[in-house]
Amino acid sequence: MINNQWSIILIGAGNVGHHLGKRLYEKGLHIKQVFSRTKEKAQALAAEIQAEALTNLSKIDPNADLYILAIHDDAIPEVASQLSLNQKLIVHTSGSTPSTVLQPYAQRFGIFYPLQTFSISKEVDFEQIPICIHANNKEDIIFLENLAKKISPKVYRINDEQRAILHVAAVFVNNFTNHLFQIGYNILEKENLSFDLLRPLILETAEKIQEHPPAEMQTGPAIRGDEATIERHLLYLEKFPEYQSLYELLTKSIKKP
Amino acid sequence: MINNQWSIILIGAGNVGHHLGKRLYEKGLHIKQVFSRTKEKAQALAAEIQAEALTNLSKIDPNADLYILAIHDDAIPEVASQLSLNQKLIVHTSGSTPSTVLQPYAQRFGIFYPLQTFSISKEVDFEQIPICIHANNKEDIIFLENLAKKISPKVYRINDEQRAILHVAAVFVNNFTNHLFQIGYNILEKENLSFDLLRPLILETAEKIQEHPPAEMQTGPAIRGDEATIERHLLYLEKFPEYQSLYELLTKSIKKP
Repeated sequence: MINNQWSIILIGAGNVGHHLGKRLYEKGLHIKQVFSRTKEKAQALAAEIQAEALTNLSKIDPNADLYILAIHDDAIPEVASQLSLNQKLIVHTSGSTPSTVLQPYAQRFGIFYPLQTFSISKEVDFEQIPICIHANNKEDIIFLENLAKKISPKVYRINDEQRAILHVAAVFVNNFTNHLFQIGYNILEKENLSFDLLRPLILETAEKIQEHPPAEMQTGPAIRGDEATIERHLLYLEKFPEYQSLYELLTKSIKKP
Repeated sequence: MINNQWSIILIGAGNVGHHLGKRLYEKGLHIKQVFSRTKEKAQALAAEIQAEALTNLSKIDPNADLYILAIHDDAIPEVASQLSLNQKLIVHTSGSTPSTVLQPYAQRFGIFYPLQTFSISKEVDFEQIPICIHANNKEDIIFLENLAKKISPKVYRINDEQRAILHVAAVFVNNFTNHLFQIGYNILEKENLSFDLLRPLILETAEKIQEHPPAEMQTGPAIRGDEATIERHLLYLEKFPEYQSLYELLTKSIKKP
């Protein structure tokens, strides 16, 4: 199915597009064109993966086999509407957008979602990245599954409804967690203490969770029912009323049986 | 100051005592005795670090140079009261207990607090662990600082007040973060999705924070002001009213300028 004639168009050369493009290329997939509105981004990635760099959507080859939209959620419908898909498969890489947003523009559409947070400057280990795939027909599901298996051993079939729920959970474990790091940072900053004091603890907590369920790893005053410490902490947090409310609600939630 | 005659008594052979004892021993410090109420724990650690195992506090050598209490916060006063300290230095390893809890039992007292979460079964890299030290007199502060530098390059003088604040911040970045992992776990479990989908994301988030301030790493619907996604998530969370409240409060806190 995937042979030398077979080709991918990658639309987007940001954090996801950059890493995904490089990984596909390293695994022998042929990326024919890379599009980015930012010329430098398109050229930089295209040079790395032996693709043609494009900054004009109308130049996209209408006869490629797979179109991957690695762009901002909001831009997906507009970009999709400008492609001539000729019954070819189009997917996007977003965790928070249903595949059906592509439905008005394509007969064959789906998802190719690497569940990780990417930064251009930081290498990632694709062997550890779950790839969530979905399509609106069985053949394309199987095709995307096989393609995903070329770049990661962790491939999951996740439909739109499941992916929406996965996104809620990801907001808790990633976005909200980062905000708790920010709160720790702000508390220490106010007291002229370095956030470096907490960085190793943060990393160790995340490493432990790789092999244990979170319930086994829960520690601290709330789970111990250490009311004296909780009271002291709430008193200190009078300085930060907003953090005090969060402390109270999170403590209550931990205590719940 | 620290020579061949010089000796440490380690009281407690749990998670902290185990790793701290091994590290001190590896770095050439002489641990004379290890106490644990659990005979097996005392013996197991003592065998590893060429110390005498004790299960009876009255057998503790009153002529050692440093007594390290690596025990539960609640047990510190009672155990300290049973020691004959002969003006020797006693420290505890707790992040959440003031050094002054030792004052009724000792003229020289302080803190030797490795700021990390320990499990007996998981190796830790002491090179990465901040050691927070404090004592009630300047000579002992300098002494503990030098001792700490033998086991970690990251040594901080942190007084009781600072350490109490550090503990509040640690509750946010560690205990509360773990609870957010638990929420993610519970949401996925209800939908028959594997928590393995989120584990790599959790690790990557913690790795990024090692080199960046959290503010730079904040992503997600709240910081983007993506109200449509927030509304969808809150609607889904009708199934989990408790998590819905947390989602609302955390989102509000992220949005604040």
